[in-house]
Amino acid sequence: MRVLGIDPGTAITGYGVVEEVKGDLKSLAFGVIRTPASQPLPVRLQSIYRAVRELATEWEPAAAAVEELFFSSNVRTAMSVGQARGVALLALADAGLTVAEYTPLTVKQAVTGYGNADKAQMQEMVRLLLGLAEVPRPDDAADALAVAICHLHSARLTGLSDSSLPPHRGKGWGWESK
Amino acid sequence: MRVLGIDPGTAITGYGVVEEVKGDLKSLAFGVIRTPASQPLPVRLQSIYRAVRELATEWEPAAAAVEELFFSSNVRTAMSVGQARGVALLALADAGLTVAEYTPLTVKQAVTGYGNADKAQMQEMVRLLLGLAEVPRPDDAADALAVAICHLHSARLTGLSDSSLPPHRGKGWGWESK
Repeated sequence: MRVLGIDPGTAITGYGVVEEVKGDLKSLAFGVIRTPASQPLPVRLQSIYRAVRELATEWEPAAAAVEELFFSSNVRTAMSVGQARGVALLALADAGLTVAEYTPLTVKQAVTGYGNADKAQMQEMVRLLLGLAEVPRPDDAADALAVAICHLHSARLTGLSDSSLPPHRGKGWGWESK
Repeated sequence: MRVLGIDPGTAITGYGVVEEVKGDLKSLAFGVIRTPASQPLPVRLQSIYRAVRELATEWEPAAAAVEELFFSSNVRTAMSVGQARGVALLALADAGLTVAEYTPLTVKQAVTGYGNADKAQMQEMVRLLLGLAEVPRPDDAADALAVAICHLHSARLTGLSDSSLPPHRGKGWGWESK
């Protein structure tokens, strides 16, 4: 099973493609989509849409996973991330993919086994789980790989191994209207 | 000159098409795009994208206008509006339209002449300016008409009467990265 993880942002959107074969996790690709602040916002959103669609076409994942974000502080940041997130979700849906959303806590628990891991521990676990020589950089790419791993973990826990995952299944799932 | 105003939201997106001919304003169409909360978020975003593109195709506006939102309260709302807004901006850009963004204060000043108008005064002024028998309903449609009027007002003030408006021009303009 192959999963495309996305960590959306207007300036920088992380992505990671993770495949599970007989219990082994492998990173097929990871990186970031950057858009210059000098461009008009709609043009930046067009770039994100196109890049996400191209990733879906190139890697043919069975499903996509995105972190469900909760901001405690900056409303302006939430708005900006929301715009990029909307476009990314649209691109994934247009590519015919189901998109699973997970809370940050669920991602942490799936990757590290407990919810209090800090960012460095998370990244080191992502590195170990994927058998990489170094921690994936930048952070946005590591975060995208983490949410993809979380989806594979959830799929295994629920006994599902293909893309026939229902939209509402278990904790951390669902299409909550925000 | 014809302008498409959009007031984005995940559950309800307002739109309004306003045309100025020799100083007279006329509303050609207004209404809302509703998406049911029972649908997965990506499907709702697809509906918004398609509907906005269809409006652009049907009405062939010279430009589009969207309110630049500042939230003081709810981060979750900002995230939700951001997602719908990102998809609406993408649809307008894909339709080849330049999109102007105005602060709520600029819209108020353009419609009512001073910045302290309340919502009811704003809506009454929109009704009067467009020569409508009744205040446009729902609120989201009235808000979309107001931002379209604001754009026509700004275009007149800056001596421009076509779609060749640059992205950075005067107060309330610009592609601020959020």
